[in-house]
Order: sequence, then C-alpha cells, then structure tokens
Amino acid sequence: MTWIDIAANSPFGPANLPLGIFRTGDEAPRVGAAIGDQLIDLAPLAAERLPDVAPAFTGQSLNAFLALGRPAWQATREWLLDLVGDEANRTAVEPHLIRLDAVTMLLPFEVADYVDFYASEHHASNVGRLFRPDAEPLLPNWKHLPVGYHGRAGTVVASGTDIVRPSGQRKAPADEAPTYGPSQRLDIEVELGYVVGTPSALGSRVSVDDFKDHVYGVVLVNDWSARDIQAWEYVPLGPFLGKSFATSISPWVVSLDALEAAEVPLGKQEPAVLPYLAGELTNLNITFEVRWNGQLVSSPPYQEMYWSPAQMLAHLSVNGASVRTGDLFASGTVSGAEKNQRGSFLELSWGGREPVTVNGEQRTFLEDGDEVTITGWAATPDGTRIGLGDVTGRILPAA
Amino acid sequence: MTWIDIAANSPFGPANLPLGIFRTGDEAPRVGAAIGDQLIDLAPLAAERLPDVAPAFTGQSLNAFLALGRPAWQATREWLLDLVGDEANRTAVEPHLIRLDAVTMLLPFEVADYVDFYASEHHASNVGRLFRPDAEPLLPNWKHLPVGYHGRAGTVVASGTDIVRPSGQRKAPADEAPTYGPSQRLDIEVELGYVVGTPSALGSRVSVDDFKDHVYGVVLVNDWSARDIQAWEYVPLGPFLGKSFATSISPWVVSLDALEAAEVPLGKQEPAVLPYLAGELTNLNITFEVRWNGQLVSSPPYQEMYWSPAQMLAHLSVNGASVRTGDLFASGTVSGAEKNQRGSFLELSWGGREPVTVNGEQRTFLEDGDEVTITGWAATPDGTRIGLGDVTGRILPAA
Repeated sequence: MTWIDIAANSPFGPANLPLGIFRTGDEAPRVGAAIGDQLIDLAPLAAERLPDVAPAFTGQSLNAFLALGRPAWQATREWLLDLVGDEANRTAVEPHLIRLDAVTMLLPFEVADYVDFYASEHHASNVGRLFRPDAEPLLPNWKHLPVGYHGRAGTVVASGTDIVRPSGQRKAPADEAPTYGPSQRLDIEVELGYVVGTPSALGSRVSVDDFKDHVYGVVLVNDWSARDIQAWEYVPLGPFLGKSFATSISPWVVSLDALEAAEVPLGKQEPAVLPYLAGELTNLNITFEVRWNGQLVSSPPYQEMYWSPAQMLAHLSVNGASVRTGDLFASGTVSGAEKNQRGSFLELSWGGREPVTVNGEQRTFLEDGDEVTITGWAATPDGTRIGLGDVTGRILPAA
Repeated sequence: MTWIDIAANSPFGPANLPLGIFRTGDEAPRVGAAIGDQLIDLAPLAAERLPDVAPAFTGQSLNAFLALGRPAWQATREWLLDLVGDEANRTAVEPHLIRLDAVTMLLPFEVADYVDFYASEHHASNVGRLFRPDAEPLLPNWKHLPVGYHGRAGTVVASGTDIVRPSGQRKAPADEAPTYGPSQRLDIEVELGYVVGTPSALGSRVSVDDFKDHVYGVVLVNDWSARDIQAWEYVPLGPFLGKSFATSISPWVVSLDALEAAEVPLGKQEPAVLPYLAGELTNLNITFEVRWNGQLVSSPPYQEMYWSPAQMLAHLSVNGASVRTGDLFASGTVSGAEKNQRGSFLELSWGGREPVTVNGEQRTFLEDGDEVTITGWAATPDGTRIGLGDVTGRILPAA
C-alpha cells in the first residue's frame, strides 16, 4: 500500500523499491528508489532520517551503499517501506519525487569482477547440440558443478547504450582459413545478474547458507554474443571476444528482500551435488519477455534454472577466491523447454536454420538498427508482480 | 651512470627506474622508484620539480600515474634519469632515498580487467599433449589468433602474499564421480604481465602500432594453477576455479621505455596473420629464473614467445572492447624448447610422471610450505641487464 499514485500494473509497486543511479540536468548523479513512474531522490531525505546510510546515497554508483552490508540494506528497506506506506510522510517526501521520464538512468554500480554462469539445462543442451552436434549435448561436468567463466567487467554498460557490431575472426567449418570482418551472427542472451555487496576474505568460502549476507539484489542482463567469433575462438580457454565487446544491464537493482515473496524451491538435482553445494536451496519465479524491434519473440522462465544462485556463489568461492563489492555474477542464458521460451536467437532460430518472423521480416541474428528490449518480473503467491524494469540496446553498424 | 652507490649486478640500475608502491611504518603508501638497493620517495621531490605529475605519486596505487598517459610517462622518465644521473641532484635526492629492506612493497596498481593469453607455442603444445593426448597438440585457431581468456582481477595479489591451497572438485578419468578436496596438483605459471595506462573508447580498436601509447610497462606474473580442478571444469567455457584463487605479481612495474633496448624482432609467424595483427612486431629478450624452495629448476626464455604483446592488445580490442587504466594482460606461461626452460611444473614433471629433484626431495606439484620465487631480467646489446625484480609466494595448507 502506498499514498503515492501509481498504476495497478506498475513494475515498481510499493513492495519493490529498487535502487538506481539517476541524473537530472547538470546535477551530480545520485541514488534514487523507483516507485510507480517516479523515483524518490534519497540523499536529501536520508540526510535527516537515515543519517548513517545517507552518505552512501550521494555517490555516482551504488557501491558505497552495497558495501554497507545486510543490516543497512534491511534498515534502508524498512525506511523506504514506511516512506511510501505511511501517508504521514507525504509532505516530507513529495518534494523529492521526480518523474522517471525526466531523468537519465546510469550504470547502477561499478562492476568489480564479472562472472557468467551457464545454469540453464535447456540452454546448455541446445548450445551443445548446435556447437558439438556429434557429441552428448551436456558435458560430463555440467550436473556436478555450475559451469562458469569470467567476462569483461569494463564493458558492462548501462541499458540504452548503443551496441557497435563487433568485428573479429570467424571461420566456418568449410572455410580453409579464418576471415576478418563484422560478426554475421550477432545474438543476445537473456540472463539474471546477481550483485555482490559484502566482500569475503581471500582464502575463505561463502557457504550456500550465507548467500543473502553477500548478495544485495539482481539486475537484468543482456550478454550480447557474436556466435561466429565465439565458435572459432572458444577452444580451449572459453569465450573471449565473442562476448567481451558489451554486456548490458538494467538500471534498477531489485533487492533479494523484495524478491523473497517470489522464492520457490529449487528443482531436483540428480545426481546429488557434493556437500558444499547442498542446502535449503531456492530459485526465483521470474518471467522474462524478449522484444525484437518491439515484437514479443520469447518468454524465458527463470524458475526452471538448474542451479541456484546460492550454489553459484558457493562454487565461485569454494577455492578461496574472494568476492568484492560490485562483483556481478550472471545466471547464463535463461531458456525454457518450449521454443518460445528460448533466451538466445541462436536457439530461437536453431543456429540460423529456422528464421523468426519479426514484424513481417525474416530474422535469424541481429541486423544493424535492430533493437532488443528484455523485461522481467517476479510473480508472488498473492498476485503481486515485482518488476525488474528493462534492459535495452540497439545495434549500430560495425566501426 | 649514476652518483648513487649501487652494485654492478643490481637488477635496478640507473637505466631501469621501475615504479612501485611502498609503505614505511605508519606512513601512507606512496610511489617509489627503485635504484640499486634503495628507492626514491618520489612525492616530496616531484612536488617541487615535476608539479604536474606530483599528485599522482601520493596515491596508494600507480593508477593515477598510469592514467596520465605516455607524454607524462616519458617526462617522468627523463626527470628520473636526470635525478640519478646528475650528481648536482645529490643534495636534493639523498634525503628521499630509503633502503628497500626498510619498506614493505604493496600491490603496485588496482587491477581493472585481467586477461591471460596463451602465447608460447612450446607451452600450448606441451599442455595439449598432456590434456588431450589423443588429438593434435595445437588446436586449429592457435596460430591465427592469440588465444586468451579473462581471469579474476580481484584475486591478483602482491608478491609475498601466502597462497592458501585451493579446494574444489576434481575427477580423474578413471573415477566414477568427482570428489571434493584440496588440490593435489597445485602448480605455477611463469608469465610476463602488461600494464595498461591509457584507456581506449568502447567501440574503437587499439592497433598494433599504438601499443606503446596504451601500455606503460610490465610485471612478473605467477599464475598459480590447480591442474586437477582445471582439468575437470574447463570444458566448454575455459579455466575458472583452477586459476581464480590467486595470481601473484611483482611489486615493480618496469616501463616499456626502459625495456626498449631489450627489444628483438618477433619470430616468424606461419601461416601469415590477418592484417589487424600485422606490423613491425617486436618481442622482448627476457630470461626468467624459477626457484623452488631456493633451487633453480627452470629458466624460461621470453623471446621465443609466438605472439607479440602488441598483437595481444590489438586482438583483445579488435571487437571494440575498451581497455581501462589498470588493465593487466599476461602472456600466458613462458616455456622454451628445452626441459629446463619449461614455465610450469605440469610441464617440468610431464603431468606428474617425471618428478623433479628439489634439494634432494622428489617433487611433482607443490607441497604445503613450498615457496616459489620467479625472477626475470631483460638483456640488452651492451650487456646491461634491466631487472624485473621477483615475485614470490609460499603455499599454506588448505583452509
């Protein structure tokens, strides 16, 4: 409930209250909380009412806030719930409400390390069939550990950033030698990204039970992928330039506390996982929608993901690797069992062999000028939707 | 030539002048330049004599200095050469000389993104034979592009940091299922690391000719590796936990300008590379020495590396990926043709089958308490050695 006037179907209802970095005119960027089609400018309100946290709201990224840790995150959420829930706060809050269409949203946090997992069985199986048609689709390690790799943190960009078509080497199996040029198989990957707040010490581990002490919340991720570059380069050390040109994330970080009502039990894992990956594991009931030049082409379901995010973090750190404030780890492409639930165009067009009709045009991979927007929301038992906002980008011709 | 009293065989002669971050007692860390067995405390001297650069010498990392770009790097080098070369500076400089054994050296820069290449043909062939015994040792892409992948920037640590033996999943081919436990095949990798100063814009490329505009200098790198963890996890997305627990770097960053006298032509590349990788390419005449518990076990030669660092940077950015101040890209393991030139214990012990005698004890991989120190120096035509210092670390038992 809120005294603020918001649409019933708003992604940013009074139980959500995601945080982001906004800028208006010439003013310095700072932290806002979304509510309906407005945001609350937090720094001036918090200066008086939440003084311990207030300095973290004046920065140009959420990192200072993320570093405060779970007690401060929870105190902030309680404060925000009261601000929007109790009409007695109207006089104090109203001067600090700004319409979302009057601000520019920026990258919400400085990315420390970026890890990308591969946690959808449907996706991994589809890609296995397409990249290694003569072998078992899932490799022997896949059900024993959440496979992942490090991506390029410096090219994680804010939603809305134009994506220049990457160039590089590619070689079709029938070609004698590789050629150089713009990627001809430019793709998306629909993912959920987890944002680390509280660091861990080098040489220690984060157990599955401590997940929420370290991870603040989630963003939408579009892990743009150049499939022709990737297919040629990826043995034996994994994807590199096929991914590193850009990864787009949504501007609003939705807290795990807001998403608690959308938690569901993790699906069965068979064979049983090793003890360091076992526990009371949950997943999130999130649905994504992928729009290609405005047309809905896919609705991947997150709750079918094989690996839980708590397992991803436990695995990432089991060797003693430390995590830092601002670390981002993403789920890997979210694909469901059905064709209209696939989270990449590689899968949707089955390697380019089955074109997709987009506004009457035939598409396999992305063409210059194409725009892709991914939205997502978490569904809760009482019917409330916790929106994740959107992440969008348009393809510019190769430089 | 210098008026400062230094040993004839010092790695830090008057033509070297590497930069690092030091701390003495309770004072704040700041920038020093090594000369013989002392360092010059640069901030107070520069305040008067190099005021444009001086603020960059007071930080706790070299990043501010690195971000100033090549003209400032060159002006700084000219100033340092004059400080140590002209005895007229003795009175001004002597109060700011500090003995190296009286300081603690810290991580020299904040690592932005860390990329690890795989540029030694000897190493890639050896590893191919060991990891994929039934296939061609070099994969089809290897001579067409410098294969690389992203590592974990947050676990790059200063020389001298203890290395906790990592735990994780490993599965020998004969095992039914993976098991969890401390790595039993803990290894080193001798590498040269390149430190980026000047950033590039997203969507643009750094040509091979612009290498020195972006890269300031080099460090020694020990890319600690858990071979059993790596062998089980690395398909299809590359090494992850087998590497991410720690990467050690040397404290002194030696500038490319200091190393210019040690440049040699790059060896022949056959087949010819694509045009974006072609140019007037050089390599560095550097020799490493690997000491295992004090005993010299290997002397890898850098100049036999197949790929030039200018090609690594051109490749890394050819897809439009931006580089940032503090980016570190490493060469990959440096191995020569001879057994006593191999840059990893995996190769030196041929997968553990041929133990190495270390101080009378048999060794294949690292045991708890073992210490590894890598040193390196560049040789120049006039016989001067430009030392890179050393990178060292000791293995602690698994946590």
